[in-house]
Amino acid sequence: MNFLSEVALDYPKAISFASGRPTDAFFDLEAWFGAAARFGDYVAARTASSPAAVGKLLAQYGRTNGLINDLVSQQLAKDDGVVCPADRLIITAGCQEAMALCLQALCARPGDVVLARNPTYIGITGAADFAGIPIVPLADDGTANLVIAFREAIAALRADGKNPRVLYLIPEFDNPTGTVLSKQDRAGLIEVAAEFQIVILEDNPYGMFRFDGDKEPPMYALDGYGLVIYLGTYSKTLCPAVRVGCAALPETLFGDKAASAALANEIGERKSYLTVNTSQLTQAIVAGILLEQQCTLSALTTPALQFYRRNRDVLAESLATAFGNRGGTVWTRPDGGFFLSLTLPFAFRRDEMIVCAKDHGVIVMPMSFFALDDSQENVVRVSFSNVSPDAIRAGVERFAAYVNDRVA
Amino acid sequence: MNFLSEVALDYPKAISFASGRPTDAFFDLEAWFGAAARFGDYVAARTASSPAAVGKLLAQYGRTNGLINDLVSQQLAKDDGVVCPADRLIITAGCQEAMALCLQALCARPGDVVLARNPTYIGITGAADFAGIPIVPLADDGTANLVIAFREAIAALRADGKNPRVLYLIPEFDNPTGTVLSKQDRAGLIEVAAEFQIVILEDNPYGMFRFDGDKEPPMYALDGYGLVIYLGTYSKTLCPAVRVGCAALPETLFGDKAASAALANEIGERKSYLTVNTSQLTQAIVAGILLEQQCTLSALTTPALQFYRRNRDVLAESLATAFGNRGGTVWTRPDGGFFLSLTLPFAFRRDEMIVCAKDHGVIVMPMSFFALDDSQENVVRVSFSNVSPDAIRAGVERFAAYVNDRVA
Repeated sequence: MNFLSEVALDYPKAISFASGRPTDAFFDLEAWFGAAARFGDYVAARTASSPAAVGKLLAQYGRTNGLINDLVSQQLAKDDGVVCPADRLIITAGCQEAMALCLQALCARPGDVVLARNPTYIGITGAADFAGIPIVPLADDGTANLVIAFREAIAALRADGKNPRVLYLIPEFDNPTGTVLSKQDRAGLIEVAAEFQIVILEDNPYGMFRFDGDKEPPMYALDGYGLVIYLGTYSKTLCPAVRVGCAALPETLFGDKAASAALANEIGERKSYLTVNTSQLTQAIVAGILLEQQCTLSALTTPALQFYRRNRDVLAESLATAFGNRGGTVWTRPDGGFFLSLTLPFAFRRDEMIVCAKDHGVIVMPMSFFALDDSQENVVRVSFSNVSPDAIRAGVERFAAYVNDRVA
Repeated sequence: MNFLSEVALDYPKAISFASGRPTDAFFDLEAWFGAAARFGDYVAARTASSPAAVGKLLAQYGRTNGLINDLVSQQLAKDDGVVCPADRLIITAGCQEAMALCLQALCARPGDVVLARNPTYIGITGAADFAGIPIVPLADDGTANLVIAFREAIAALRADGKNPRVLYLIPEFDNPTGTVLSKQDRAGLIEVAAEFQIVILEDNPYGMFRFDGDKEPPMYALDGYGLVIYLGTYSKTLCPAVRVGCAALPETLFGDKAASAALANEIGERKSYLTVNTSQLTQAIVAGILLEQQCTLSALTTPALQFYRRNRDVLAESLATAFGNRGGTVWTRPDGGFFLSLTLPFAFRRDEMIVCAKDHGVIVMPMSFFALDDSQENVVRVSFSNVSPDAIRAGVERFAAYVNDRVA
């Protein structure tokens, strides 16, 4: 992930569509620091403790699986439709830790494999690589049937003596593609996962940022088998620096209640040897904001949602102006999230990215950076979450000039 | 590590000498939250940015290896005698993350092994276990020559086709034994490590809390080969909830400057797939306090140091009163830190610990909990860091009553 920021540092004047950072236009650090005190009051009232005693409790080591689980549980139910009691939630040092811990706990045996779409989020690829867990792509060029691709990948792995244990997905406004998984695909994937006892990791960083259409139910809510672990984060709804995420475990693991509890213990045990517990100071900040907002972040995230929607519209308009009158370049119009995907009439890889940044002052991410094979060479990820409307217009013009140069 | 807190939760009225938590008597959360603003001002002045821009920077994703490295570098030099420039420091989500990352980066090949004293801190044992890295004890019963034991362990491992890569140590006021490594042992271990290209992980959570005698130089400062990685933490000097620690890499790795830089990159890459970056909010709190204290925590930690010293004295006195007039029970008098070690005339394991908590209302940790073999069955770790002098007196009386019962 460091490569992204390094290119941006090397070309500081370039307009960047590369970073998947949330907009910082609505960050309010002072208010958020202040919110921690509200959580202190809440704990004091619930435990009949003095503010001083609560301050000591917050500043100490804490419960490995988290301190604010009850409030997070309420927020997940209200905002995401994820109904998970506090004791099946694990609060983590950002969602990346939840992802890494789940992978390590679920794929602990030799031959265990994680499946993912292709392209996929590099956080899961890196976590798998460093844990020594093979990551295998579903054949998924955007037109293939994902459920069939899932079944085929499982069959091929099993024929090869491998044990597919986990499928990683971002069903809502996928990073990097920006696409949404249909309800039918969600249900179909769950059925296949149940048949082969595969756990689905449902990562949902962008679900609160839907511009158009109706919300799809989370796979966690569709799951009747006990196989979906839902991963949540406050990095996009509040800010990345809180480093607070969570994993919501199902009530049973494939029907076995004790197995789900054992998995929660295993994840907690692993966490205790990685980060001990998630900072109770940043947990208190998150919890204080949740208390202020009655455990829904819907109102607080509305300005950002409107910002992202407007950016999507400006980007779509600019792309139509720049590329609409000639063939060869196509792009998607996402219904939410931070990203769209754009296909060029030529290969655009790391070297092309650097030339484009250097000579044309605009940075976009080669989709090959997120790919598990060479199927994405002509595709780029365009992020519109942390750039102004004016920069979008200017950036698309610059990018079109680059493409013109290349095509000419 | 969860077992410790669970026994305490099961017997809430028991006096506990089990927890290695720092005293919370001097925590000042309100002031510490306020200190973050001072760091904001510092960044604004250095980068000629507005406070609003700095607020956005702090709340965003940040540099994987840390934001406050220059201030931590100054503090390590002043307080610990560890001279390490900012760019060789990696700021981590608590020292446990630094430990886990170093282990994983250094012991990535099959056959790689980590060595540790016996007993040792369970954080290293757990981190090694979950990473699938064998942890092997030095023969170390307190009387053996540690340098010879190190050499013997290396020889035995190499004869067995294994590759000893890391030696983990807490030279100052070891957890769990409370002992200090002599300067001669420090130097001797470094020589042997150099001979066999073994990296020493020098963990130093308790170094600021010396009651008697002169400070020993850190192994990092004694190292002329480029083989000591120093691990620091703010969990004991400030508070655990900041979850800020660090790893200080040597200038070269066994004489190779590029190898040390490559190791820093490797650790950073691994960190980016575990926790992305350490919370910049808690980093800002730590940095603000460092700015207020001119990058030395000596004054701020003085009250805690005096508290721990007094507790050590009260504990020594109480033990002498309770056990001094009869044989069979012996204990150490540590020159600093949080722990002493006490040997009983009978085995004291998990079951005995629970009986002692239940029937006599006092919790002490079986040293076997920290042991890599069965040599510690009669030993207990007595922690005096998070208990009042009165509780120490009463707790030792209770413990003596338990021992009397058992011996009778």
